[in-house]
Amino acid sequence: MNNNAWIFTIGTELVQGRVINTNAAYIGRRLTLLGFNVLGFITLVDDVDLVSRYLSHVILAEKPRVIVTTGGLGPTYDDRTLEAVAKALNKRLVLNDDAFRMVKEKYDRRGVPLTPERVKMAYLPEGATPIPNPVGTAPGSWIEFENTVIISLPGVPSEMEAMWESWVEPRLREIGPKIHIAEITVKIVGVPESSLAPHIEKAVKKFARIYVKSHPKGEEEGKSVIELYVMASDEKAENAFKAAENALKLILDSLHGYSAHVEILETRVS
Amino acid sequence: MNNNAWIFTIGTELVQGRVINTNAAYIGRRLTLLGFNVLGFITLVDDVDLVSRYLSHVILAEKPRVIVTTGGLGPTYDDRTLEAVAKALNKRLVLNDDAFRMVKEKYDRRGVPLTPERVKMAYLPEGATPIPNPVGTAPGSWIEFENTVIISLPGVPSEMEAMWESWVEPRLREIGPKIHIAEITVKIVGVPESSLAPHIEKAVKKFARIYVKSHPKGEEEGKSVIELYVMASDEKAENAFKAAENALKLILDSLHGYSAHVEILETRVS
Repeated sequence: MNNNAWIFTIGTELVQGRVINTNAAYIGRRLTLLGFNVLGFITLVDDVDLVSRYLSHVILAEKPRVIVTTGGLGPTYDDRTLEAVAKALNKRLVLNDDAFRMVKEKYDRRGVPLTPERVKMAYLPEGATPIPNPVGTAPGSWIEFENTVIISLPGVPSEMEAMWESWVEPRLREIGPKIHIAEITVKIVGVPESSLAPHIEKAVKKFARIYVKSHPKGEEEGKSVIELYVMASDEKAENAFKAAENALKLILDSLHGYSAHVEILETRVS
Repeated sequence: MNNNAWIFTIGTELVQGRVINTNAAYIGRRLTLLGFNVLGFITLVDDVDLVSRYLSHVILAEKPRVIVTTGGLGPTYDDRTLEAVAKALNKRLVLNDDAFRMVKEKYDRRGVPLTPERVKMAYLPEGATPIPNPVGTAPGSWIEFENTVIISLPGVPSEMEAMWESWVEPRLREIGPKIHIAEITVKIVGVPESSLAPHIEKAVKKFARIYVKSHPKGEEEGKSVIELYVMASDEKAENAFKAAENALKLILDSLHGYSAHVEILETRVS
């Protein structure tokens, strides 16, 4: 069993570039800090066949531990993500009693009648557990298929984040890897990225559980500015931090030929 | 031959949520306004096998007219997107003479020697045309495979956008569909999204080349606020605008039972 994760963000408005996809980044970050190995995001137009085809492809070809989807849970004609999840798993979409109670309660409280568009939000893939939505109306869905958990959340960021923090993350902590992540970000002035490259490669090859990425940030007074990010993971927080420090040291020690200026921007262990 | 397009954004920093993916939205928007039908974004970690597998899957399963990739063209060990493109097309990665001249000229001008990491940026899939980079160093790549054009650009937004505007877009205009896009965005106060939903569905079913999306924007003084986006396409700009207007009118006319307030936020024809 692996700890790989994939994120699906559904919405024609994302693919047409009218909305910047912040949900995928939020979830990618949270999953990484939980120790999952996020491999990809797939963003698709609101098309049931296309979404179910790609869900099914990722489930079968990658067998990830977790898939998170956002978007397409609302009341409109194109909100059909759970239909796509059901189709990908070869299950029926059924009226879920708990989800129905959640939806009904929201509308009862506002004194608004239950139309077909509103009841639609209580249809989940057969066998799914509804995820309560403390901010909006549409419940989410948690369903397991072989070793993969498929979690579906709404696309509205405030709803998605509230559901993630209150309900999803505590459950993922239980099933996820028990590892710690250390991160160090430094700013290096005076060394071009192409000169840094071979030293980064050496560090990455030397340490097994290290990820290093350089981000060119233009120039300051004619000198290259690079933001260097080093991440390490380990079962012990202390070891993760030491590994990140050692990798960074190896890279910085190799820069003695340059009159480089190095500044630590951030360190973090979680 | 279809006018479908897919966008690949490559970078572990995107998938781990440390960088928000604005490139995909930029390109999705530009392709949509050129009349292409953007179906999906795929964002992947810097892994040659994974990237080549998904490129190859999309090329063979979707046969899109255009694929754009961003990221992974620089000098570091994990910048291997063109290797993945070559692998997906079953071609070799070769030193491209024109690309070599572009890279050499940049470093000669700065009086910096050509190291292997710098020459690496001049390796393109066999048969590709290099795309000049007026801002940074790494050239892009344009290669055709059957009916699909695969365009690879750097991940640094300023470089990607400069190359898109000066080189890529003029060429896509030539091969793309000759259509116009009209867009109208209105703000509707006083109608919940679930009440709007059946009327949107009716409009979308009635008009063939219409796309409508409602975005809930919370509440103002206890009333639901919805931003409604209507897009229409046609060979004639005038007809596209009329179609968007007609679809919007059909939806707004159905709201006479509500004391709704409607405000036009933006109209645009391109």
